[in-house]
Amino acid sequence: MRERIQVLFGEPLTPAQAVARILAEVRERGDAALRQWSQRLDGWSAESFRLPPEALQNAFERLPVDLRQALQVAASRIEAFHRRQPLTSWIAQDLGGTLGQLVRPIRRVGIYVPGGSAPLPSTVLMSAIPARVAGVREIALVTPPQRESALPADVILAAAAIAGVDEVYVLGGAQAIAALAYGTETIPRVDKIVGPGNLFVTLAKQQVYGVVGIDGLAGPTETVIIADDTARPEWVAADLLAQAEHDVLAAAILLTPSPTLAHQVQQAVARQAETLPRREILALSLVERSGIVLTRDLEEAITLSNAYAPEHLNLVVADPWRWVEKIESAGGIFVGERSYEVLGDYAAGPSHVMPTGGSARFASPLNVWDFVRLISLVALDPQTAEEVGRVSACLARAEGLEAHARAADLRSSEVCAG
Amino acid sequence: MRERIQVLFGEPLTPAQAVARILAEVRERGDAALRQWSQRLDGWSAESFRLPPEALQNAFERLPVDLRQALQVAASRIEAFHRRQPLTSWIAQDLGGTLGQLVRPIRRVGIYVPGGSAPLPSTVLMSAIPARVAGVREIALVTPPQRESALPADVILAAAAIAGVDEVYVLGGAQAIAALAYGTETIPRVDKIVGPGNLFVTLAKQQVYGVVGIDGLAGPTETVIIADDTARPEWVAADLLAQAEHDVLAAAILLTPSPTLAHQVQQAVARQAETLPRREILALSLVERSGIVLTRDLEEAITLSNAYAPEHLNLVVADPWRWVEKIESAGGIFVGERSYEVLGDYAAGPSHVMPTGGSARFASPLNVWDFVRLISLVALDPQTAEEVGRVSACLARAEGLEAHARAADLRSSEVCAG
Repeated sequence: MRERIQVLFGEPLTPAQAVARILAEVRERGDAALRQWSQRLDGWSAESFRLPPEALQNAFERLPVDLRQALQVAASRIEAFHRRQPLTSWIAQDLGGTLGQLVRPIRRVGIYVPGGSAPLPSTVLMSAIPARVAGVREIALVTPPQRESALPADVILAAAAIAGVDEVYVLGGAQAIAALAYGTETIPRVDKIVGPGNLFVTLAKQQVYGVVGIDGLAGPTETVIIADDTARPEWVAADLLAQAEHDVLAAAILLTPSPTLAHQVQQAVARQAETLPRREILALSLVERSGIVLTRDLEEAITLSNAYAPEHLNLVVADPWRWVEKIESAGGIFVGERSYEVLGDYAAGPSHVMPTGGSARFASPLNVWDFVRLISLVALDPQTAEEVGRVSACLARAEGLEAHARAADLRSSEVCAG
Repeated sequence: MRERIQVLFGEPLTPAQAVARILAEVRERGDAALRQWSQRLDGWSAESFRLPPEALQNAFERLPVDLRQALQVAASRIEAFHRRQPLTSWIAQDLGGTLGQLVRPIRRVGIYVPGGSAPLPSTVLMSAIPARVAGVREIALVTPPQRESALPADVILAAAAIAGVDEVYVLGGAQAIAALAYGTETIPRVDKIVGPGNLFVTLAKQQVYGVVGIDGLAGPTETVIIADDTARPEWVAADLLAQAEHDVLAAAILLTPSPTLAHQVQQAVARQAETLPRREILALSLVERSGIVLTRDLEEAITLSNAYAPEHLNLVVADPWRWVEKIESAGGIFVGERSYEVLGDYAAGPSHVMPTGGSARFASPLNVWDFVRLISLVALDPQTAEEVGRVSACLARAEGLEAHARAADLRSSEVCAG
């Protein structure tokens, strides 16, 4: 796509510059620009990009029963998990009046669901369900057209139906992010955009950040497995391969103090990989981004993992709970060989949208808090207001803000000279 | 500064391009680049930008007693408020195993405190105290040198001492943000950067977002006052002027259904403004950004305010609590004429770092949650792992991820064909 954009613009542009131009055009010209860019980049355009609401339920009914049930089980587990997340307003009456913070759901949220080589219904569930649990009133989903047909895959639409998505727009790339951020004649703007995407989507999210909220900037996925001699090599190998098949930039890393395990896993990876369909992706991600690290002991494995701050961390060791409290940075901790990371991708409960690229140092998995805002509440009693007023006048005069100080003086019996 | 940067670069650059270049240079060349840019833009450089730790306490002891006490009262109220914020890990045992989310403080945080025409000790308290309450281990503060001396103002350092700041670096602008984000030989990188700044600081924060966390992109400050006939015009006028004196872009807006109040406030603003020192700023912010809007009724005032999503909202009406629940978007709600916004700037309790420019649609005031991360925890019991495994295999095959499905198959008695 990068080359295509450069040719279209008639001059060499960095991806960030190309994205800036698409955003500016959609912002200025709305649907007309959207139609042009969608036609140019995705080979598709329409009078309205929105699917009729009944398309979602119809797609659901076309799915095989197994898949329908799988989506429903996953959805109900994701919902049950996020309903447990504490999310309440709080009020204190003993801080000199009534003070606290009110929780308010974000009104309207946009979710980006990538197209790519295979449709990802799990991303629909993992993004939309926490939003719905938080009480978001309107959920709009954008997803690019498939190459074969203008419609998104049935399984995407079915997941949207189950997750309670309100609107689906067949739109991808930076132009979809622009439509969500600025709004057009036919697409009302949203308050926050969540969901992963390719480089252009990520750059567009970064550039519209501030105009709307965003959930973060997703990078390639990562899994660290910390294992000892008690681990089964075949299972560890399968988990590394599952991670590595995501894409050529995916990282699958085993940290172990056991040379025996390291050796056995290495052999099992090679053996299992032979029969897998995404061998070309595996060849790159395993060689370029993945590996087995022999550590002095488990302590050192934990230290390395904390420094790396992986998206996923799987503890396959004799006494995993002993180590959980030592984990400082990770998107998710999977405890024991029965809680392998693949379960977290689909149906364990937590959202699979987790911080990548070391951003677990400062960021959290997508969760219900991402879909609410706090409003601080200040209602002081008269005596406290008087005391706080005097203090405020002192500080305001130290900051050279005389009008601030006078607003306090007006209500006070005593004036602070600063 | 914009012109200065352009001259220095020898070619016209947008501010964003100038910032990108400063960030890249500091990233590549560390302290050497930092010294060059600090010398060029702030006229100051040093072998080490860090102040000796004792400088903070010494500055505190040089302050007048009144101001020391005011800082301490403000700090203790801000701390008491943030200690009430619910912030706990949670664990559920009835979702088929042990699932939950662990709360972990961010390890190291950087705080930017602007220089500008007057030092802002309140910003130090309002940023550092929520971080300390959250359990952040290391708090590093950056603030530009004053024009008269290389040292920051005593009142800034004293506030840093009270708030428990660990390190102070005399550095401003985009170069300070670069040092915090990437680290240098003498300044360890941080995990998250918070605090307001000028255009260059804001652009730098936007550009390093993803490498580190940021709190948001601060814009000009705003206050909306909703008042009825019960309001005292002199007090409302004083509150509007306090807001408007911040800077020429500050917005102070009165929404009222009362023509009488509107008229009286208008006159009081003119009268009070005459005796205020920052008249030139007021002349611009009042004329360009502020105003009085006559509404049909209070209901319409609330509707307008919700659409504007102000940083601060003050309810000066007969029955303010009746309206609180109708407020959908605001950084803070100040209830009644005794809880005026100036108190929130200094010592009411909540952080005064609140979302501006309509970002209250999606963002919250700075709070304890900004300084922690969640880690999702998954430890399924064997039966649930088996069920979730089958569901995951179905969904993985629908997504074309065969290695995912096989990791599940290995552990299952029943295979999903997808």
